[in-house]
Amino acid sequence: MPLIARIEAILIADDPSTFVTRALDRVALQFGGIEGDRHFGIFAKAGVRQPMYKRGQEIMNRRQLSIVSVEELQGIAERIGVDHIKPEWLGANLVVSGVPELTKLPMGIRMMLPSGGGLVCEGENEPCSGPGRIIASHYNDSLLTKLFIQKAQQARGIVAYVERPGEIRVGDLAKIHME
Amino acid sequence: MPLIARIEAILIADDPSTFVTRALDRVALQFGGIEGDRHFGIFAKAGVRQPMYKRGQEIMNRRQLSIVSVEELQGIAERIGVDHIKPEWLGANLVVSGVPELTKLPMGIRMMLPSGGGLVCEGENEPCSGPGRIIASHYNDSLLTKLFIQKAQQARGIVAYVERPGEIRVGDLAKIHME
Repeated sequence: MPLIARIEAILIADDPSTFVTRALDRVALQFGGIEGDRHFGIFAKAGVRQPMYKRGQEIMNRRQLSIVSVEELQGIAERIGVDHIKPEWLGANLVVSGVPELTKLPMGIRMMLPSGGGLVCEGENEPCSGPGRIIASHYNDSLLTKLFIQKAQQARGIVAYVERPGEIRVGDLAKIHME
Repeated sequence: MPLIARIEAILIADDPSTFVTRALDRVALQFGGIEGDRHFGIFAKAGVRQPMYKRGQEIMNRRQLSIVSVEELQGIAERIGVDHIKPEWLGANLVVSGVPELTKLPMGIRMMLPSGGGLVCEGENEPCSGPGRIIASHYNDSLLTKLFIQKAQQARGIVAYVERPGEIRVGDLAKIHME
């Protein structure tokens, strides 16, 4: 049985003042990700996530898209004691359902879209304080920032890049190729 | 203990009539791989190795470089009953030593060069008949083609792409980052 991810939401971070995303019905994925999104680009500057490179060096952009799962977000919400966590608060670009352990998908595997486009999983997106602070401000509880980082380990979703461009729509069923 | 790969040879396939490579002392790796090599490019056409895409569609090139290990090549030679297998015959771009199970390195991990350049492992390069035929012709034994495909499984090396450009020289010690 192939693993199928249903696309529940598509989001873009196109407000330069924040990483928080807003929802779209569909988007034409390009080489580099979602045009206009803050993580768009075939290349990117190395940052804290790539300590083996000097800060600011140009590298291939393996973190074009952030993908989270409905099931994992609900699990984090329960563990930190809040009603829900919106994917926008985490700067997510895609929300999927049907893959409860999305974050454990290995690097290098493909997620194929009905349009013929394809994404490559680049592994766990480790939780950091930015989204924690957004959650904390929404629930007016500053302790949630640290709690989020602790309780979102191995559940905060993955990053991915576009291997082949193609449209993606809410409701699409994406096939995960485990090899 | 970090895993260290010593660069034993650097090779280029720049003769359009064959995938067989020739040796260089050093090369400046670019985004896309080795300029002038038949697998050079940030993008590539989908082929038999990417059956999830239509033949000829443009995709990100995850197979810029072929890397083999001295130890694994010697193991294949022993299993097919020949004295040695030259990396040139397999179209290899890099030959390393010190990583006996190179082919089992997981997708997504990095190989960092002393120059600051970095490669990303894209997993096993599955053996096919092309190199088998070259080996068979060198030893004048047509049975070796099929035998190579059988006995080179999980030992024929990996493919990789350039994450950050940088020079690579024979004798370099490349550090393998397992996470």
